[in-house]
Amino acid sequence: MSLRVGLVGFGTVGQSVARLLLDGAERRLRLVKVCGRPGGRERAAWLPPSVAWTTRFDDLIVRDVDVVVELVGGLQPAWQWLHKALLSGKSVVTANKQLVAEHGPELLDVAARRGSLLRYDGAVAGGVPVIRGIEDGLAGDRLLSVTGILNGTCNYILTRIEQQRLPFADALREAQALGYAEADPAADLDGLDARAKLVILCQAAFGIRVRPSQVACESIASVAPADFDAAHARGCTIRQVSSAERVDGSPHEIAAFVRPALVPLDSPFARASGCQNVVSVRGEFSGETVFTGQGAGGNATAVAVVSDLLAVATARQRLAATARPIAVSATPRKRVS
Amino acid sequence: MSLRVGLVGFGTVGQSVARLLLDGAERRLRLVKVCGRPGGRERAAWLPPSVAWTTRFDDLIVRDVDVVVELVGGLQPAWQWLHKALLSGKSVVTANKQLVAEHGPELLDVAARRGSLLRYDGAVAGGVPVIRGIEDGLAGDRLLSVTGILNGTCNYILTRIEQQRLPFADALREAQALGYAEADPAADLDGLDARAKLVILCQAAFGIRVRPSQVACESIASVAPADFDAAHARGCTIRQVSSAERVDGSPHEIAAFVRPALVPLDSPFARASGCQNVVSVRGEFSGETVFTGQGAGGNATAVAVVSDLLAVATARQRLAATARPIAVSATPRKRVS
Repeated sequence: MSLRVGLVGFGTVGQSVARLLLDGAERRLRLVKVCGRPGGRERAAWLPPSVAWTTRFDDLIVRDVDVVVELVGGLQPAWQWLHKALLSGKSVVTANKQLVAEHGPELLDVAARRGSLLRYDGAVAGGVPVIRGIEDGLAGDRLLSVTGILNGTCNYILTRIEQQRLPFADALREAQALGYAEADPAADLDGLDARAKLVILCQAAFGIRVRPSQVACESIASVAPADFDAAHARGCTIRQVSSAERVDGSPHEIAAFVRPALVPLDSPFARASGCQNVVSVRGEFSGETVFTGQGAGGNATAVAVVSDLLAVATARQRLAATARPIAVSATPRKRVS
Repeated sequence: MSLRVGLVGFGTVGQSVARLLLDGAERRLRLVKVCGRPGGRERAAWLPPSVAWTTRFDDLIVRDVDVVVELVGGLQPAWQWLHKALLSGKSVVTANKQLVAEHGPELLDVAARRGSLLRYDGAVAGGVPVIRGIEDGLAGDRLLSVTGILNGTCNYILTRIEQQRLPFADALREAQALGYAEADPAADLDGLDARAKLVILCQAAFGIRVRPSQVACESIASVAPADFDAAHARGCTIRQVSSAERVDGSPHEIAAFVRPALVPLDSPFARASGCQNVVSVRGEFSGETVFTGQGAGGNATAVAVVSDLLAVATARQRLAATARPIAVSATPRKRVS
């Protein structure tokens, strides 16, 4: 009994997911339908005849699709689509960080009420299994802080300012020319991209609802070569740091920010290069645990998406074989009272 | 409906687990019975009256225990105990690396047949959630290699030889005086401890059965201060490295070893200090993912054990809810998978 996958969004990550599903190594997953953008890309020639092509999202909410994978990004129409998919009883896998940061708790609620699943490990840190690491692997601890390097574009630009003493504007232009920064780079530079990921990490680590608007952001655009001299003099460098920590004594209050900040030269944060992401989690009992890996790129994110699909397939198999349950991966984060 | 926990083994990790369970934050888990060694430690004064004390393992295989936690270590009698517990339908959580390396697949088989669960995330790298990271988070990838620093004792001794130019025997004596090495340090120095962990990682990463005896080990006892000079001249240092990788083209063949080896000074392996463990996983699609954290110590390992218990509790709740699928989850942020 394979899980029948309907995919919406056929950009870099979507195509990587399709290729991973079609290479046949994973028999528990079967790509049955792809929904492309109306007026957008044509059906890819390498898709086999067994995969249907559509440009209407509603064509995925049908009997022969078990799980919808959303890789379009942005709040609309993704929010309406996924709400509808979950309401209709489909499980959903998404890598849409904005959507999960803004509406994750509501969507999880719909999923729980309908007995379906919502997973989004690809929304944070690409292929690095940090959501699972926190929600499952560190479930037994009380987590105190989460700190990360979550945006590869900022990482690249800051590294170039540091190494080549480029003014910010030149480093940005270079990043754009190389495709590392978008034509409108505001979401990366101003910290909005990293903030969405931090919000998702907060909900995983602390079990509390955080709104993106509650997290203070400061742009890296004011960082100049001379700032690195001052940083180096203190044994540090400058990175865009995303950080959240429990405020002393309060189980319900955290302090969170995304901003350019000093990090010690010998810390894992200073060593993150290019699209590498780093997430450091401190727990009362487990001490510091650090996850490092490819935080962007179609293939790395596709691994997170396919891993989520396998978790859905496992849960479904288990449900089908209620007499013989086997290991389950996800546990809710412990509440501190 | 809380999960009733019976604990055998009341050393450092066992006591940490008991304290975590008794602090009351996690209502889904309830410590009901502890089995100490006959003639060993007395019942701890801080155990509340609600926790029964026994010195007979069979007292844990009773109706009012749902899951057995084994923290005794060693092959016997743990193997017989856990086999019996699983056969009787109890779920089992263990941090016993030797047992899981030698008999994990058979025990998993018994668990699957009996519809119970066997989890052992604490057996490798203490509190670092690397088994989950590999088995769940990177499930969608084809993994190519696993390389780790898995033994804190060797790490400490090699670091002291490097920094203080101590002869090996002096560094070992120092480690023993500080309690970082055991009176009989052979299992650590010769690589048998790291080998058991590597075998468990291999089974997680490659899905193939590996016998500990198939992995070549070389002791660190021959490493001398002069070896570090030669290593430094090449931009490297020396660490006890545990490594396994797929042999070209074969899905069923791996090359694996545990031995003192050169590692680049700027690699995460060189930076591991004290009881820090580092595991680097390379995947065909996800690239390199690195997990770093506390690889030893009662509290860190206890976090892995309690996280495993929560996974068992979640699976059990889900099973109980299958008759009423709409009620799978009551709280909004709970993940259902």
